[in-house]
Amino acid sequence: MDLLTLDTNTLLHFQKQLQLKYAHYKGKNLKLNMSRGKPCPEQLDLSAGLLEGLDGVFQAADGTDCRNYGGLEGLPEARHLFAELLEVEPEEIIVHGNSSLALMHDLLARAMLFGVDGQESPWSRHPVKFLCPSPGYDRHFALCELFKIEMITIPMRDDGPDLDRIEELVAKDDSIKGIWCVPKYGNPTGITYSDQVVTRLAKMKTKAQDFRIFWDNAYAWHDLTAKSDRLKNILTACKEAGHPDRVYIFSSTSKISYAGAGLAMVATSRANLERLKKQLALQTIGPNKLNQLAHVRFFKNADQVRSHMEKHAAIIRPKFDLAFKIFRTELGDKNIATWSEPRGGYFISFNTLPGCAKQVVQMAAAAGVELTNAGATFPYGNDPQDQNIRIAPTYPPLKELQTALELFAVCVQLVSVEQILQRRKFTPERLPEQNTAQIV
Amino acid sequence: MDLLTLDTNTLLHFQKQLQLKYAHYKGKNLKLNMSRGKPCPEQLDLSAGLLEGLDGVFQAADGTDCRNYGGLEGLPEARHLFAELLEVEPEEIIVHGNSSLALMHDLLARAMLFGVDGQESPWSRHPVKFLCPSPGYDRHFALCELFKIEMITIPMRDDGPDLDRIEELVAKDDSIKGIWCVPKYGNPTGITYSDQVVTRLAKMKTKAQDFRIFWDNAYAWHDLTAKSDRLKNILTACKEAGHPDRVYIFSSTSKISYAGAGLAMVATSRANLERLKKQLALQTIGPNKLNQLAHVRFFKNADQVRSHMEKHAAIIRPKFDLAFKIFRTELGDKNIATWSEPRGGYFISFNTLPGCAKQVVQMAAAAGVELTNAGATFPYGNDPQDQNIRIAPTYPPLKELQTALELFAVCVQLVSVEQILQRRKFTPERLPEQNTAQIV
Repeated sequence: MDLLTLDTNTLLHFQKQLQLKYAHYKGKNLKLNMSRGKPCPEQLDLSAGLLEGLDGVFQAADGTDCRNYGGLEGLPEARHLFAELLEVEPEEIIVHGNSSLALMHDLLARAMLFGVDGQESPWSRHPVKFLCPSPGYDRHFALCELFKIEMITIPMRDDGPDLDRIEELVAKDDSIKGIWCVPKYGNPTGITYSDQVVTRLAKMKTKAQDFRIFWDNAYAWHDLTAKSDRLKNILTACKEAGHPDRVYIFSSTSKISYAGAGLAMVATSRANLERLKKQLALQTIGPNKLNQLAHVRFFKNADQVRSHMEKHAAIIRPKFDLAFKIFRTELGDKNIATWSEPRGGYFISFNTLPGCAKQVVQMAAAAGVELTNAGATFPYGNDPQDQNIRIAPTYPPLKELQTALELFAVCVQLVSVEQILQRRKFTPERLPEQNTAQIV
Repeated sequence: MDLLTLDTNTLLHFQKQLQLKYAHYKGKNLKLNMSRGKPCPEQLDLSAGLLEGLDGVFQAADGTDCRNYGGLEGLPEARHLFAELLEVEPEEIIVHGNSSLALMHDLLARAMLFGVDGQESPWSRHPVKFLCPSPGYDRHFALCELFKIEMITIPMRDDGPDLDRIEELVAKDDSIKGIWCVPKYGNPTGITYSDQVVTRLAKMKTKAQDFRIFWDNAYAWHDLTAKSDRLKNILTACKEAGHPDRVYIFSSTSKISYAGAGLAMVATSRANLERLKKQLALQTIGPNKLNQLAHVRFFKNADQVRSHMEKHAAIIRPKFDLAFKIFRTELGDKNIATWSEPRGGYFISFNTLPGCAKQVVQMAAAAGVELTNAGATFPYGNDPQDQNIRIAPTYPPLKELQTALELFAVCVQLVSVEQILQRRKFTPERLPEQNTAQIV
């Protein structure tokens, strides 16, 4: 039944039913969380033995004592492994600490203080803007706010951000210094950039000579199905386009091994890497090499990482499937919501009717189910349509997830019905209403 | 025999002997390193079982799964342990990654970008100067160079930096925003600041309201003898003086557990810590909690850390003793060198006759013994007297160390003799010469 065209009496009756259901869930005193992309304990268990596997042998392949100082760019065998996985050369990657966010933050901080290209032109001397394809990752946007970088929202299409808009903007405005991208199984959209999008990002003419792509490939190997998305290699594309230094590729094992105790990495041109190494030499004594050694010993090679990821998928795919099933069953024919059904990553991007997202999140919270803040997926926490909600289904156990999702579906319906009824009060002539929710 | 007053003929004869000795060492094709304060493998072996000790149990005392995300300020039990050791409250400390240098770098970077006191007055907007007690730690000075902070050299006295000079400078110049201190078993001097020095640093009137002490307490528990130096608590002193936010205390377990895979920490006022936590929340997913858990399980309590440090001392004290013995035997009565004989830390501060240090380091390098660069212990790598050399005796095995130190003593004598002879050429009237080498 299409709620938008349902007659008001039936709608009022349906509202009553929903209110009863909501009250029922509220009475359960739930305390469930679907707010962050956290692996669940069963996923973490997949890496059992990783640390213990060192077993008192601390020498890397080249004889380095991993307990001692040294080795800024990461262990050679760790660089080799993740270079293969990211399809770059070992000389194009630094394997570092446990947080790719920290690598991004630090690169941005250095750009503000020193610039990015050795020309000693600190970004902070002039206004700086970043392009922010949205819905996107809230922590990227938070970094822009921290560094007082003005954010320009770029709409997302089915195959990545709107390149027409991007090309137009970067061609004329040299204060646009960068763009945030989660190019594979995007957070939260689940979208993987098409080859054409990657090529255009690499090729486009930018007025700022020091324009940089912050390519957060956090879900590079995080397929949910056997049919994985393929992402075109942007470093190669940038080289071919004559912009070899344009991109920083970030990734980590946070959702491969241990979320809080994995390895983070940045891949980029040799020139960028040399510059980064000089700065890292002043910043730190180097990464924790013991953790790198433990990872390399545990995963051995790229194939084993890939088969390890299949084990992750086997644990979390049922959670995504459950969400899709509940959404289809409860919301499928009601014309009040759309959602992504990604083939990988950690999120479902859910769109309500315009103007409903905040209220849905509040209602769910009032009944004990915590969701990512509505608006978080947009710059400045401001979703202009107030309709996008990021669903993170990986952490809760299936049974709790089911309760949380069912409650969520009730909240979506209830808020939608209220909004439809509210609108009718002020729209006495019954025009067929439009569903403006868009797939993102 | 006092080389300064020795007659020229005897001196020429002695020079010949030294040249033969030097040639002998050079013929050995040595490859020895006394340049950095690195623990030796036997010291690292003291922490055997640290990582393996987790044994698949990853829950912290409060139930936190240390494998997953979360916990910006460090595990409660880690904060508790190091708070006790640093004599601060657990709420006054953050236990973080493996590099206290990174904590210093990042605090300085944030100060440049955002200021330190919530007034949004970035240091980078105006010229910034730092006081640099010298000889000091080259990596501190490198950070100043990186951030274009002008360094003002402050002479070291027997009980810490020259406070008369410091008080005079900070009282009148509001561009002086900070001071670097290694207050206990200083790098390289080995000096521990007296209570009076600590009190005056805490109390002094600074024209800059946002003046900060960067208190690098890297050797807080690193006694070489049973009689340990006691360092007055600067955080308490700052509170008592009405400047609670003046100091950041840094330390790490790099020379307790694993040099490259330990824990670093910063202790400061609650207000500073709250500010720092907000910034860390944007920078990183948090520290590697598994490593913190492993450390806490391994060390258990403060007493065990202290007794662990006795084991370190038992390994490295003989290396210091060997250096003292060789220096006394070879240089003791020659009036051409002075050196510190510290009760803790990782270094011996060695002073040649003025104008000899660079040449000594070069000669030693030419014979295969690498020392810290002459000048490194002063701002801009420029020792105005060219006389200070930092000796780091901890890493080489005793036998190699002996060879390296003996060669070093030959180089010191040879360069000194050459300089004395050179001087006499231009000083035909034989006046008694003065030894201007000073203990640092």
